[in-house]
Amino acid sequence: MPDYTRIREEAYAANMRLPALDLVLFTFGNASSIDREQGVFAIKPSGVDYQNLEPSDMVIVDLDGKVVQGQLRPSSDTKTHAVLYKQWPSIGGIVHTHSTYATAWAQSQLDIPLFGTTHADHLTVDVPCAPPMDDAMIAGDYEYQTGFQIVNHFATQNLNPIQVEMVLVANHAPFTWGKDVKKAVYNSAVLEELAKMAYLTRQIRPDVPLMKDALIEKHFLRKHGKNAYYGQ
Amino acid sequence: MPDYTRIREEAYAANMRLPALDLVLFTFGNASSIDREQGVFAIKPSGVDYQNLEPSDMVIVDLDGKVVQGQLRPSSDTKTHAVLYKQWPSIGGIVHTHSTYATAWAQSQLDIPLFGTTHADHLTVDVPCAPPMDDAMIAGDYEYQTGFQIVNHFATQNLNPIQVEMVLVANHAPFTWGKDVKKAVYNSAVLEELAKMAYLTRQIRPDVPLMKDALIEKHFLRKHGKNAYYGQ
Amino acid sequence: MPDYTRIREEAYAANMRLPALDLVLFTFGNASSIDREQGVFAIKPSGVDYQNLEPSDMVIVDLDGKVVQGQLRPSSDTKTHAVLYKQWPSIGGIVHTHSTYATAWAQSQLDIPLFGTTHADHLTVDVPCAPPMDDAMIAGDYEYQTGFQIVNHFATQNLNPIQVEMVLVANHAPFTWGKDVKKAVYNSAVLEELAKMAYLTRQIRPDVPLMKDALIEKHFLRKHGKNAYYGQ
Amino acid sequence: MPDYTRIREEAYAANMRLPALDLVLFTFGNASSIDREQGVFAIKPSGVDYQNLEPSDMVIVDLDGKVVQGQLRPSSDTKTHAVLYKQWPSIGGIVHTHSTYATAWAQSQLDIPLFGTTHADHLTVDVPCAPPMDDAMIAGDYEYQTGFQIVNHFATQNLNPIQVEMVLVANHAPFTWGKDVKKAVYNSAVLEELAKMAYLTRQIRPDVPLMKDALIEKHFLRKHGKNAYYGQ
Repeated sequence: MPDYTRIREEAYAANMRLPALDLVLFTFGNASSIDREQGVFAIKPSGVDYQNLEPSDMVIVDLDGKVVQGQLRPSSDTKTHAVLYKQWPSIGGIVHTHSTYATAWAQSQLDIPLFGTTHADHLTVDVPCAPPMDDAMIAGDYEYQTGFQIVNHFATQNLNPIQVEMVLVANHAPFTWGKDVKKAVYNSAVLEELAKMAYLTRQIRPDVPLMKDALIEKHFLRKHGKNAYYGQ
Repeated sequence: MPDYTRIREEAYAANMRLPALDLVLFTFGNASSIDREQGVFAIKPSGVDYQNLEPSDMVIVDLDGKVVQGQLRPSSDTKTHAVLYKQWPSIGGIVHTHSTYATAWAQSQLDIPLFGTTHADHLTVDVPCAPPMDDAMIAGDYEYQTGFQIVNHFATQNLNPIQVEMVLVANHAPFTWGKDVKKAVYNSAVLEELAKMAYLTRQIRPDVPLMKDALIEKHFLRKHGKNAYYGQ
Repeated sequence: MPDYTRIREEAYAANMRLPALDLVLFTFGNASSIDREQGVFAIKPSGVDYQNLEPSDMVIVDLDGKVVQGQLRPSSDTKTHAVLYKQWPSIGGIVHTHSTYATAWAQSQLDIPLFGTTHADHLTVDVPCAPPMDDAMIAGDYEYQTGFQIVNHFATQNLNPIQVEMVLVANHAPFTWGKDVKKAVYNSAVLEELAKMAYLTRQIRPDVPLMKDALIEKHFLRKHGKNAYYGQ
Repeated sequence: MPDYTRIREEAYAANMRLPALDLVLFTFGNASSIDREQGVFAIKPSGVDYQNLEPSDMVIVDLDGKVVQGQLRPSSDTKTHAVLYKQWPSIGGIVHTHSTYATAWAQSQLDIPLFGTTHADHLTVDVPCAPPMDDAMIAGDYEYQTGFQIVNHFATQNLNPIQVEMVLVANHAPFTWGKDVKKAVYNSAVLEELAKMAYLTRQIRPDVPLMKDALIEKHFLRKHGKNAYYGQ
């Protein structure tokens, strides 16, 4: 019998950090962790309060979104996770929240502009916002199509999910990922802070210029270059 | 002698959750729970601090707002609760708060626009704002008329209190309800979050379009349709 | 030897509630309580951290702002308190904070408009903002003149300190008072919430109308009329 | 063998206060304390979570930014600290954060205007924002140049680091300092509050006038004059 202990515990710990980091109200979020060898991931069950959650409640699902093990119904966003895992073999964990400022940007259907080094320390482009789906995609398998909307937007915009570990889905909310689910949780908290700072920046100065290219490049190399040395 | 234990304990627990969810300052709110068979509801007494509240302090009131049992004076909003319970036989609990963002929208005398799925997961129309009462209603039995102002606005706008479990009263503050008072508390917290997100969305992008009809319909069916499956 | 125990303990308890209610950063605030019979009040010492404060640290001061008892230097706002106590014999306690939203309105040199019942439940006029002092008053005994600036503004505007228990001082911050210092603390927290709600209301709808006269009058009578019954 | 106990413990205590004061998310900040006699300072190691930090983790660095003692890599902002300590012999501690409102002003590339006494109690000019560096400085030794950008801006603007203990670096974030690192932490919290109040003030009233010169001068003398007496 396969052993899902690692991903179950990682997914559980990640889900529990979401309310602790003030990223979710009630059950408005979910985190998952994948086992690439076994081709399954563990995800939060649907509609269970965080205070009642146990590691054993995590549902084990395959990359088509079918339940492999678990008594509870998986989160209604499970198919979105499944698509991202299937299309992007490099990622190890995914987090979805409706965190307040990031969701406000998603509702505004706008990318979050790169205004400073807090942003550039994490990604050196605007946080992308995938546009609203067309009506046929919505009417179809909605959560499944949400995954494709994200993957297609990254392809169209020539974005690399290893370098850009976060996205807004227009009219919906953010998704983040990373090499593991711990990094995905970190990215969700960072995104919320970037969203708040960018909001305030534009309120203070609507015509504020974006950050200089030289500074963007410096931060990219500081983090991703062969002599990377960043760490506050 | 009739037994009011259930509604007293439910109303008490609901009232205690309001400060815990950061929805009330001091005593600016109240929750009630109804016993439909006995035709009475339990509501918070007037002006008692939350830290001193006991289940036995809850006041038992009939659907005309008359006290049936209890030493303390019921909340000054009691008649508004009574009207809603009498006019809408399907609801089991009511919550009134002056939560910050929802109250700011009520003071603005505007509906809260439907900008995203966080909103659509709970109601698929704008959060309605009942207009200011005319002077005769205000001069009369004010809290009683507040109830009728809400009920009339729902009738005029063809809104169903089973599908739309929240309202703003212009220049005043929000009321929410649900099948039981626990759901009404949940709705108060959701409303405050929707109010904050909509505020931020319009600040970021004043000309932001409303959500697409296809997406609104999808969310309505996901929740209320015969194949309802929603749950994060 | 006179006994200052009551006012010392009341002033201490009030000062300790200011950080608990999130109304002060570090030592940016002070509360005092008066003993009208003895003609002295107890006030927070200058620059002492809240976590190190003891009831015995409170400084006893007369209505000219002279220290009567106490080892520590009284708050630099002491003379403002002294003027208010001397000019307004009905008040029993005073609180001064630099709470964020109220101070932003003071810095804007604007009254806080009456937009809703949360405000009208406490005062039925805009929260007054005393204008900047003229240069001679500033150059003179500044904190003393701050008190007169408040008292003169109330006289000029025909405001009654029993009905309006709060004021903004332009470019500075709020002062509140009440029959006792407990009520003054309550008013400081209420003022901060009114300031935040009014801020949000005008951001949502810059042209929002003020509340109707009929509703203002209703709330005034609900609270101050001979049949007063208000209490949530 | 030299004894670095004092600066290690001071730097540790200061770093631990940054998350407690809500000034940093994750590791987005660092504090250092200098021993002027030994010509070294203690600074937070790079990328270590606050909950795992120990006094012995602090890295001892000389005024050229070279590590003198310590197993861990010092914060990537170390060279900025080193330049400030070398150029300004009067300062004893430095703090760098990405606190939300101060960073938003830095991203806006604007000084924080002096709107009120909360600000004037701490500095009697606008909080200066050092402009974006030119491309050659960015491409060079970036963190080192950040220090010179600050020092040069103070020289050009004729600002005294003893009277103005805070700066914004455009597109980046704030730095604060003081006679010791405890004061630098205090200044970081004060700066964040001033940034928030100034933000709100301009949102409430975009055309708000700056504070009167007479009031600025009064506050300067109240604090720095020979008869200084300030303390709330």
